Amino acid sequence: MAIKLYGHPLSVPTRRVALCLEEKGLQYEFVLVDLSTGQHKKEPFISINPFGQVPALEDGELKLFESRAITQYIARAYTNKGEPLVPNDPHEMAVVSVWTEVESQKFEVVASKLSYELVIKPKIGQVTDHGVVDQHQEKLAPLLDIYESRLSRSKYLGGDEFSLADLHHIPIVYYLLGTEIKALFDARPKVSAWCDDILGRPSWQKVVQAMKI
Amino acid sequence: MAIKLYGHPLSVPTRRVALCLEEKGLQYEFVLVDLSTGQHKKEPFISINPFGQVPALEDGELKLFESRAITQYIARAYTNKGEPLVPNDPHEMAVVSVWTEVESQKFEVVASKLSYELVIKPKIGQVTDHGVVDQHQEKLAPLLDIYESRLSRSKYLGGDEFSLADLHHIPIVYYLLGTEIKALFDARPKVSAWCDDILGRPSWQKVVQAMKI
Repeated sequence: MAIKLYGHPLSVPTRRVALCLEEKGLQYEFVLVDLSTGQHKKEPFISINPFGQVPALEDGELKLFESRAITQYIARAYTNKGEPLVPNDPHEMAVVSVWTEVESQKFEVVASKLSYELVIKPKIGQVTDHGVVDQHQEKLAPLLDIYESRLSRSKYLGGDEFSLADLHHIPIVYYLLGTEIKALFDARPKVSAWCDDILGRPSWQKVVQAMKI
Repeated sequence: MAIKLYGHPLSVPTRRVALCLEEKGLQYEFVLVDLSTGQHKKEPFISINPFGQVPALEDGELKLFESRAITQYIARAYTNKGEPLVPNDPHEMAVVSVWTEVESQKFEVVASKLSYELVIKPKIGQVTDHGVVDQHQEKLAPLLDIYESRLSRSKYLGGDEFSLADLHHIPIVYYLLGTEIKALFDARPKVSAWCDDILGRPSWQKVVQAMKI
């Protein structure tokens, strides 16, 4: 049975899962969930995700939600397809897990506020709160210093190979690089080279094309 | 070489890792990081965790931080010891991952605010903000309704076996059950039975004894 990705083209977590499917070279059907009419808060969608948030994934009988759980599933269930995304060695995998958690617990918390104010609000006709932007810009700078130091010691966050730790960052970094926040990334050479590398992947170019709205 | 756990006995993420080590029956040395003197923000600790937060783990040459990355490493690297904690089947593992993400992205965000106000602040001589408590209690209730529904369909969050998805909740649920928030758990029979079950595990009793301060 085909893989179905339920989501919205603007949604960072939806794009994260689409990107993972592209990295693995998997065919999938994209099912638009219309957030403007609250489709994500109603049946049948909340039978897949009781929290009423996109994305969700169906792979045959299996129904999943939470983007990072979905990418982990795809990486593990389709090991022989496309890019590996997760190493086999438990020690190497542990380092990938550390930086996957850093994305989820540290980076996303700050980046999602900036993305909401500077990317999403203008798209949906709301006004950016520049106080919130300034406050979160101040939090992002020291975080990117730690990334700069990390990326001085390995090519990617989880080691010398591209992995889920990098992949999870791509959709929101792409949004931030289209805003004034780009200056914070440009000021750090290793971070900046890492952004060029990961955003230049053909898989991401495909997602950007497919999710244009 | 021995496993070293760097942390603080009051810290929920430190307890989460200690619990995982106990479930696996692994010997380890506990190294106290004195948060009151800011030891976690200085060398040598920040060479292990540049974010300056407990816990961190050393297993021979491997140095890790982020509690949920550490538990995943322990579960995968010591598959033959103690409790399995993660299933081998990718479909079963995917469901465990979903509920591990729910803990991290949904439950912890609300529970940590309540725990800070009602458990940590009184312990460190600060005054509880009851406005914050009320606000987060209102967020916890619908979340626990989803848990009640989930636990009506399987014994544990990730399926019919105890897994990391349950384990990650234990330290903060233990804190909350010692406060007025207990009523929210008691009002939901499946959630309440789940709490009794997971908090009754011998591994957790050991952690509570060892981390008394």
